[in-house]
Amino acid sequence: MSSRDAKLKELASAHGFDIDAEIKVGGSYVPLLRHGGEVFISGQIPRVGDKVVVTGKLGAEVSLANGQRAARICALRALALLRRELGTLDEVKKILRVSVYVHSAPDFTQQTEVADGASALLQEVLGPAGVHTRTSVGVVQLPKGAAVEVDLIAAVLPAHPAAGPQLGG
Amino acid sequence: MSSRDAKLKELASAHGFDIDAEIKVGGSYVPLLRHGGEVFISGQIPRVGDKVVVTGKLGAEVSLANGQRAARICALRALALLRRELGTLDEVKKILRVSVYVHSAPDFTQQTEVADGASALLQEVLGPAGVHTRTSVGVVQLPKGAAVEVDLIAAVLPAHPAAGPQLGG
Amino acid sequence: MSSRDAKLKELASAHGFDIDAEIKVGGSYVPLLRHGGEVFISGQIPRVGDKVVVTGKLGAEVSLANGQRAARICALRALALLRRELGTLDEVKKILRVSVYVHSAPDFTQQTEVADGASALLQEVLGPAGVHTRTSVGVVQLPKGAAVEVDLIAAVLPAHPAAGPQLGG
Repeated sequence: MSSRDAKLKELASAHGFDIDAEIKVGGSYVPLLRHGGEVFISGQIPRVGDKVVVTGKLGAEVSLANGQRAARICALRALALLRRELGTLDEVKKILRVSVYVHSAPDFTQQTEVADGASALLQEVLGPAGVHTRTSVGVVQLPKGAAVEVDLIAAVLPAHPAAGPQLGG
Repeated sequence: MSSRDAKLKELASAHGFDIDAEIKVGGSYVPLLRHGGEVFISGQIPRVGDKVVVTGKLGAEVSLANGQRAARICALRALALLRRELGTLDEVKKILRVSVYVHSAPDFTQQTEVADGASALLQEVLGPAGVHTRTSVGVVQLPKGAAVEVDLIAAVLPAHPAAGPQLGG
Repeated sequence: MSSRDAKLKELASAHGFDIDAEIKVGGSYVPLLRHGGEVFISGQIPRVGDKVVVTGKLGAEVSLANGQRAARICALRALALLRRELGTLDEVKKILRVSVYVHSAPDFTQQTEVADGASALLQEVLGPAGVHTRTSVGVVQLPKGAAVEVDLIAAVLPAHPAAGPQLGG
C-alpha cells in the first residue's frame, strides 16, 4: 500500500470510515466519471456507512469544529472513490477544483474556515498534489440535512495514454 | 431523426416545449460553449417559451412532483441546446457533470429526489451516455423565482479531430 | 502593455484596485491552477486590498447597483489573477464557464441582473473572448458576508504545446 493510500486509510479510520467498504450513492447518478485525464466526483455528504454523521446548519446547531469534521469526511469519501477507480492514489496528479457547499444559518459567514477542513485533508493525504482551487458558499439546505457537501475535479494519469479519452463510471 | 433526437422531441412535447423553437437566454452570456471535446451548458431554468413554468420554493409552495417536473424541463432545455449545436444528440459521448440547484425552504432536504427528475430525463433520452456525476444543493433563491436550475458539462465527439480545440457559441 | 491588459488596469483603478498588488486568498488553497489548456480560478469575493467592499444581502441592505459593482470587482480579481499567471491577458482564448453566487434575501430574484455585472466586465476587457457560459444562483450567505462570489474556468494558450498538461499554482 502506497504512503498516500495508507494515510487515507488511517485518517478515514479516525472517523469510523472504512475506505474498502461499499460507498453509497443517494440518487440516479454515479459517484465518479473519468474522462481523459480528468475525474469528476459527485457531491459528497458526510456519510459514514448508512448514516449522515453531521447534519444541521452551521451558525445554529452545528459548531465550526463539527462543520470542519463534516468537510473532512466529505473529502475522505472523495479520495476513497478516487482510490477505488485508480487502484491507488499515486495516480492522482492534482486536485484541480473543489466546491464546498456549507449548510448555513443566514448570518454564518465562516464558510472559508469550514472548507479548510476539506482542503487540509486533501493535502494531508496527497501532499502538494492535494493543493487545489476552491469555491465555498453558504447554502440554505443540503440533501438529508447534511452540514456540508463537497465535490471535486481531479487530474489523473491517463489510463491508456495512446487511446484518447476514457469514460468510466 | 435519430432515436435519441426523436425521444427528446417526444418528451419535450409532453411539457409543451418545442425543441426547434428559439431558446431564450436571460442575460449577457451564451447558452453553450464548445471547447475541444467538451460542451459547457449555462444554467437552465424551467422556461417554456417566454414563461418560467415552475416557480417558488420546494418545501413550501412547490410539491416534490412539480420540482421534479421543473428539473426535467431544465434537462430538456440543455439537451435541446446540445442538439442544436451538434446537429444530433448522437454526437454526445457522455454527460460528465450535472449541477442541480433546488430553490428550497429552510427545512426541505429532498434535493436528491428533485434532482432525480433531471437525471432520469438525461438517461431516458441518451441511455448509458446520459449517466453522469451530480451535485445537488438547496439554494435560497433562483433567477425569476425558478424552482430549479440545472447546468451541465458534456463530452462530445470532436468536430474536427485533427484540428485541436474548437470554441463555439 | 497590450490593450486587454491596459483596459483591465483602467477598469480596476476605477474600483481602487491595483492589479499589480498582492491578491489575498482567504484559506488553505490556491487562487489559480493551470491544467493543460484550462485555468481554474478560485471563488473571488469583492475584496480590494484587505477589505471586502460590498457585504450583505441583495434584496435587503445591498442595492442592485452595488451588487453589480461587487460582481465587477470579483471579475476584475479573476482577470488580474489570470494576467499574473499568463504574463498578459492576450493568452486568454476564451472564458468557458462563470459561476455567480449572489448573497440573496429569500425573495430577491434578480441574480441574473447582478451576474451581468461580471459578464459585462469580462467582455469589456477581453472582447469576444470574454463571452462565456454562466450559472447564477441565490445563496443564503458567503464568506465574510460578501455580497457576491464568482469563480471561472478559462481556456488559454498552452504554455508548452508539445509538453502535455501543466499544473501550476
